[in-house]
Amino acid sequence: MTTIEVKTHHRNELLDVTAQVARVVSDSGVHRGAAVLYVPHTTAGCTINENADPDVRHDILLTLSDLVPQDRRGYRHGEGNSDAHTKASLIGFSQTVLIENGRLVLGTWQGIYFAEFDGPRNRHMHVRVVPHG
Amino acid sequence: MTTIEVKTHHRNELLDVTAQVARVVSDSGVHRGAAVLYVPHTTAGCTINENADPDVRHDILLTLSDLVPQDRRGYRHGEGNSDAHTKASLIGFSQTVLIENGRLVLGTWQGIYFAEFDGPRNRHMHVRVVPHG
Amino acid sequence: MTTIEVKTHHRNELLDVTAQVARVVSDSGVHRGAAVLYVPHTTAGCTINENADPDVRHDILLTLSDLVPQDRRGYRHGEGNSDAHTKASLIGFSQTVLIENGRLVLGTWQGIYFAEFDGPRNRHMHVRVVPHG
Repeated sequence: MTTIEVKTHHRNELLDVTAQVARVVSDSGVHRGAAVLYVPHTTAGCTINENADPDVRHDILLTLSDLVPQDRRGYRHGEGNSDAHTKASLIGFSQTVLIENGRLVLGTWQGIYFAEFDGPRNRHMHVRVVPHG
Repeated sequence: MTTIEVKTHHRNELLDVTAQVARVVSDSGVHRGAAVLYVPHTTAGCTINENADPDVRHDILLTLSDLVPQDRRGYRHGEGNSDAHTKASLIGFSQTVLIENGRLVLGTWQGIYFAEFDGPRNRHMHVRVVPHG
Repeated sequence: MTTIEVKTHHRNELLDVTAQVARVVSDSGVHRGAAVLYVPHTTAGCTINENADPDVRHDILLTLSDLVPQDRRGYRHGEGNSDAHTKASLIGFSQTVLIENGRLVLGTWQGIYFAEFDGPRNRHMHVRVVPHG
C-alpha cells in the first residue's frame, strides 16, 4: 500500500492526483489489475471527473456548496464542518480504477481528484495496486 | 476486461444493464469473485437500484434534476452540462458487485443501471470479472 | 462471503457496523487485502464517516432529508419511499476498505455505517474479505 501526501489550499477543492496515482501503478509493475484508492479522512473524499476544463471542478464545488451549506438550521455538531462530512459521504471515500497493459484505464476526459471539503490541510490518500490473475 | 456498449435515448436516463453484466459474468466462468464495473465518461455513471417499478428510476432522476438543475447562477463551464458532471460524481463511476456460485449477488429488488446525465449518446461500461481465491 | 444481520430502529439511521466488519476480517485470517462491503437492498446503503461525535451522523441525515424530502411534487412511485431509493443511490451500496497487518485500514476518525433510509427493518450487509497477493 502506498500513501500519497496531498496538500490542499482551499476549504473546498478538487485536486488532481492522476499523475501520482499513475506513478504508483507504474512503479508496481502490475500489468492487469486495479488501483484501489482510499481516503482515510471524514471531511474529504475522492472522485473522478473532467481533466480538461477546470471550470467543471468549479461548478461541481459550487453546486455542492449550494446544496450543502456550511450553516444549516438544526445542525448539532459543534465543529462547523457538518457540511464537509456530508459532502464526503455523498462523493465517497474510495474509487476503484482498472489497469490494463500496465496503465490506468481512464476515459479520455477523466482525471482522479482528491476532494477536499474542510481545507486547507495536509491530507493522505492510500493506493493499493491489485493484480488480477 | 469486457466493454459493454450502451445506447441511451434521453438526456437523463437510468438504463438497465443487469442482463449484459450477468452475461459477462457467466461467460467468464468465474465461480466466486466480483464484477468491477467502470464507466469511462464524465457525464454518466452507474448505480444500483430497484429493478421492478420503473417509477423509482423516474423519481430518482426527477430528484437529481431538482437538486442539480442544468442552469445555475455562477456556472462557468461553457458546455451547458455542468449538472451532468455533478450528478455523475454524486452517483459514482464504479460499482463492485460480488459473485457467488457463478452469479451476481444482487438483492431481490436490485438491478444495475447505467446512469446517463448528458444523453442521448453512445456510451461504454467496462466490466472486469475478478476471481476471489 | 459473510452476511451481517443489521436491525435498524428509525426510518433514517446511520448504524455503526465497524465492530462486526472488523470481526469478519479478523476471523478470515487475511493479513493483506480488502473488505468488500455490499448492501443488497434498494432503500439502504453504506458509507464511511466520523466515529466520535454522533451529532455528525445526525447532521448528515438532516441534510439528506432536507435535500431529498419524503414527498416531492412529481413523484410517481406509489410506495412513499422514493426518497429512500434516491438517498441510497447517492450514498452508495458498496464500500471497499483496505486491510493491512490483518486489520481494517480506517482513518483515526472513521467508522463504517449501515445507512438506513426506510426503516426500521431487519437488513443485511455482505462482507467478502479478499486477500491481496
